[in-house]
Amino acid sequence: MTTRKRVLITGAAGRIGSHLAATLADRYDLRLQYNRTVPANPPVADVHIANCADYEALAPALVGVDAVVHMAADPSPRGTWESVLENNIVGARNVYEAARAAGCRKVVFATTNHVMGMYDRDQQWPIYCSQPVRPDSLYGVSKAFGETLGRWYHDQHGLAVICLRIGWFLPRPHDEIGLWMWLSPRDATQVVWRAIESPIGYGIYYAISRNARRHWDITETIERLGYRPEDDAEAYAQEILGPGG
Amino acid sequence: MTTRKRVLITGAAGRIGSHLAATLADRYDLRLQYNRTVPANPPVADVHIANCADYEALAPALVGVDAVVHMAADPSPRGTWESVLENNIVGARNVYEAARAAGCRKVVFATTNHVMGMYDRDQQWPIYCSQPVRPDSLYGVSKAFGETLGRWYHDQHGLAVICLRIGWFLPRPHDEIGLWMWLSPRDATQVVWRAIESPIGYGIYYAISRNARRHWDITETIERLGYRPEDDAEAYAQEILGPGG
Repeated sequence: MTTRKRVLITGAAGRIGSHLAATLADRYDLRLQYNRTVPANPPVADVHIANCADYEALAPALVGVDAVVHMAADPSPRGTWESVLENNIVGARNVYEAARAAGCRKVVFATTNHVMGMYDRDQQWPIYCSQPVRPDSLYGVSKAFGETLGRWYHDQHGLAVICLRIGWFLPRPHDEIGLWMWLSPRDATQVVWRAIESPIGYGIYYAISRNARRHWDITETIERLGYRPEDDAEAYAQEILGPGG
Repeated sequence: MTTRKRVLITGAAGRIGSHLAATLADRYDLRLQYNRTVPANPPVADVHIANCADYEALAPALVGVDAVVHMAADPSPRGTWESVLENNIVGARNVYEAARAAGCRKVVFATTNHVMGMYDRDQQWPIYCSQPVRPDSLYGVSKAFGETLGRWYHDQHGLAVICLRIGWFLPRPHDEIGLWMWLSPRDATQVVWRAIESPIGYGIYYAISRNARRHWDITETIERLGYRPEDDAEAYAQEILGPGG
């Protein structure tokens, strides 16, 4: 018999957060953080209402958990400075700091392809996580900050931090861009639990499905995290592009 | 006859800022930003009092200048989160944004070796600016943020941004660490005006003297910015280390 880990998911009302809350409950004892209100039928009973930008309100949510999956953020590439400052920069710092203070040793930080979006704009492919960052938005800048802060919390305080640069999370791809940047729901679930279980101290990894037309390196995700993606957007290519596409 | 550039120096009361204000006045028409009060005898008449964290107060300082040398910051590696958030993160954003809004096309951003300080702690030398960042402090994290934000302002808005990772600015080195990370006053002045004059769109460069015992790459600084350091801390080695040191 093994003891189940207790895992906090922040942003559990969000598009990806709510999916993870539903699909990781059989593997972990989940605690779910909501910003304002708890949905009518939350998937688990252990819930915590707090804005991540409010350290004192957030901190108790980290007490007694083995890992936190930090999904809460303003996820819009059009997010204003004021919004990403509060929700993404201050919010990420508060999660790392509360984790450190509470003795929670593992942070899975949801970051984004937008950290490297200017390479995509210039079609400078492939992209590896080790390249210098080139964000395409203040959102991307704010997520790069969270990756860097995680590096410091690892080096300085010994937190294990896995940064997942999440692609386009959708039930299925619907267009040409989706063919290369899709992250399927079940691959999202897998890559997050692989990150939780990983013994790695710090790393940044692209999180997309094994799309035949991908432009971002997932070799490191496969090799280091043990990720075994099950889906490939190519299955939808003919439907999206038409015959001969 | 050439037109002299108008250059704003923020943090002009600081240790490096005041040196630059004194030594760049013969080359440029300077405007000096002070946080609270203007010193008794400012080196130039064009002064502006504003806290960089206050966008509305700061913005007029950028109007009509060709370049800004952004030195204002909490420079302490022991700076708290609250301090670096306000002074370094919000402050840097406000300078970039005010530059963009005012049509000031060039930002020289003062950053630091502390962005890479964990490599130094682990003696993983040499260090090149192209390596992933490993800050040793929240100060270092905040300066890495400023570098990344500058990358975005360049890519998105066309600002030319030169990030100088300034070493240990001192009249002369006094100890063993100083022998490798020293930046002499006249080399500081030179590397800043080289950055102002450079046609490069975006770059990050170490700014130290040509110390024989250096651990940080200045090949790029020499090659790309045209920097020609005049001083070498080695001149003080025997005095510091004793005979045979």
